[in-house]
Amino acid sequence: MKLVFAPDSYKGSLSGEQICRLLTQAAQEVWPECETVSLPVSDGGEGALEAVLEAMNGRYRSIGVSDPMGRQISASYGIYQGNCAIIEMAAASGLPLVDPEERDIRQASTYGTGQLILDALEQGCQDLTIAIGGSATNDGGLGCMAALGARFFDEAGRELKPVPEFLGKIHRIDLAGFHPLARKIKITVICDVTNPLLGPEGAAFVFGPQKGAKKEDLEFLEAGMARYAKVLERTFGQDFSKVPGAGAAGGLGAGLMAFLGARLKPGIETILDILEFDRVLEGADLVVTGEGRTDSQSVRGKVLSGVGKAAKARQIPCVALVGGMGEGAMEICRCGVDSLMTTVNGPMTIETAMANAQELFLNGARRMFAMIQVGQRIKTAEFGGGS
Amino acid sequence: MKLVFAPDSYKGSLSGEQICRLLTQAAQEVWPECETVSLPVSDGGEGALEAVLEAMNGRYRSIGVSDPMGRQISASYGIYQGNCAIIEMAAASGLPLVDPEERDIRQASTYGTGQLILDALEQGCQDLTIAIGGSATNDGGLGCMAALGARFFDEAGRELKPVPEFLGKIHRIDLAGFHPLARKIKITVICDVTNPLLGPEGAAFVFGPQKGAKKEDLEFLEAGMARYAKVLERTFGQDFSKVPGAGAAGGLGAGLMAFLGARLKPGIETILDILEFDRVLEGADLVVTGEGRTDSQSVRGKVLSGVGKAAKARQIPCVALVGGMGEGAMEICRCGVDSLMTTVNGPMTIETAMANAQELFLNGARRMFAMIQVGQRIKTAEFGGGS
Repeated sequence: MKLVFAPDSYKGSLSGEQICRLLTQAAQEVWPECETVSLPVSDGGEGALEAVLEAMNGRYRSIGVSDPMGRQISASYGIYQGNCAIIEMAAASGLPLVDPEERDIRQASTYGTGQLILDALEQGCQDLTIAIGGSATNDGGLGCMAALGARFFDEAGRELKPVPEFLGKIHRIDLAGFHPLARKIKITVICDVTNPLLGPEGAAFVFGPQKGAKKEDLEFLEAGMARYAKVLERTFGQDFSKVPGAGAAGGLGAGLMAFLGARLKPGIETILDILEFDRVLEGADLVVTGEGRTDSQSVRGKVLSGVGKAAKARQIPCVALVGGMGEGAMEICRCGVDSLMTTVNGPMTIETAMANAQELFLNGARRMFAMIQVGQRIKTAEFGGGS
Repeated sequence: MKLVFAPDSYKGSLSGEQICRLLTQAAQEVWPECETVSLPVSDGGEGALEAVLEAMNGRYRSIGVSDPMGRQISASYGIYQGNCAIIEMAAASGLPLVDPEERDIRQASTYGTGQLILDALEQGCQDLTIAIGGSATNDGGLGCMAALGARFFDEAGRELKPVPEFLGKIHRIDLAGFHPLARKIKITVICDVTNPLLGPEGAAFVFGPQKGAKKEDLEFLEAGMARYAKVLERTFGQDFSKVPGAGAAGGLGAGLMAFLGARLKPGIETILDILEFDRVLEGADLVVTGEGRTDSQSVRGKVLSGVGKAAKARQIPCVALVGGMGEGAMEICRCGVDSLMTTVNGPMTIETAMANAQELFLNGARRMFAMIQVGQRIKTAEFGGGS
């Protein structure tokens, strides 16, 4: 019997590795001869880089880059399988790198993210995964593309500094010095939002305020971004502004699609691809996933839905051991998760649940596996619907 | 596929009948063709009479009896299958019948319980089950036996009033007028305590205080009961004082064994016998039980342990859907319960859990059956230990 464990972490109490260890212990108690595969998974948010590098035996590479305000910092990205890189834009252009009082949305730049990409190209990477959550920027990728060699000019032919201040002035993009490999390699962008570049659901109005943009900044950024979108369309022969995700990370989504031909993909799917999850599932009899709290959000590109869908595609039963369930948690059963069990096993506070997370998890895992084993013992042929 | 539902109630929130309905609904969603049998169970405590009469299509019979202080009250007992009776001593001799300020442990009598037994005999009942929990008395069954025709005399040959006041004076028991059928029918006493008649673990010292006995009463009752035990041994040729349960209900346990040849048995086993649970289990593929809260007490003659043991004896998988789990809950797995699931499915207060009991239960039942169904889908032959 082969079991695959592909849980998210229980944020704040148990890491994915801890969870896999506890699942393994419980499974071996119930099925002493079972084979287990542990693959802690992340949905591309916090900790994605670490999880992937861990699973793929990758390594970190640190280089000097510009932070969003142009200050020199050290940032890391991951290289695995020799020529694959995974970059978190937050490492170079993340909001936590800028103190609230230092924020200046008209100057904040993705230049550092471009430097990471450039370094990966120079290291010979041919398959880049870029996670674009948590940015401090709203520059439509100007800085990033400048780092890769793009130059921007106004109507009078004057070169512009690649910051949002001048988004609305851009008339021409010069790609003569653009890195020759940048459009030739495979670039996948982890993107879990579907916002377009412009409008009330666009980059500026939805994400600007949390990056320190005031009301007058929002109008200014929106107007500049609208003009920039036209220039992109003229330059690359395609309108990317309405593609879901174009507005992600202050328009970096649109920039990566336009300049680099990048493909936007939900985080969990991307991570599972990197981890070659489909291959891991071969011959599996049961998949176990989990997360700290399941609710109606869990169907939207989270670990449970990604793992469940992958299991369902192969008709492998999949169950989730979760900390607790909130409103709409059962929706996850539409995504291939056949059933859920909670580690919280009686009335208690969230503090008690977190303080006893390990013990509750192990107990829950034992009960869950024993419950499944009960099903194995039922001899009657009627299976009902199944999934 | 045949499922047997044998749950206790969730005290304060869901009755056994409600629980069976919810289990049936959930099971039919998961296994549309399944056959279900619903049998709400009680462990012989509160509500036992009602549960048995409901399940056996029995009827209540009410008669006038003496309460513990000798006042006339109306008390009911149940008759089922024509000639079987189930009597709760608390109906005639229960502690709630006597207000705290009226309590007089030296006078409190089980006479009313004897009247119920007498009436059942006169109704032609040949199989009596007597639940002896919750008594107000410590009379060693004197009153009960007097109602059935026994007479008690002191060393000088004077007849004694059958109350604890005179326990120590009894020298001879006259059974000439004792009801001729009383020793001939089958009498089962539901008894979930193992206290002997005498000593620090005996009737007076353990149960006396809660019945209003003061310190001087306890010494007095203990001395009287010790002498009474000798007389019983002399009269019936056997010492019942050390039999586990002899001290139950103020020594009524010893009295019923000595005078009526009654057999003491744990409540849940007795109830399951009455309900012919073993016959219900024939051909069952899965047994589902449950209770509001499971902890280390649950292994001691509660519904879960009784149902689990019965299922295990027939090698039928048994699971429990419980409200919550406390310290030592997993001990129940030694009693044939293969796994547990909780209806509480995340951090919450007991009040929230009880206010949403129905919804939480239905959701838990669905998840539990779906989890078992996952086991049915696993094709690999390895089952592990089983139960």
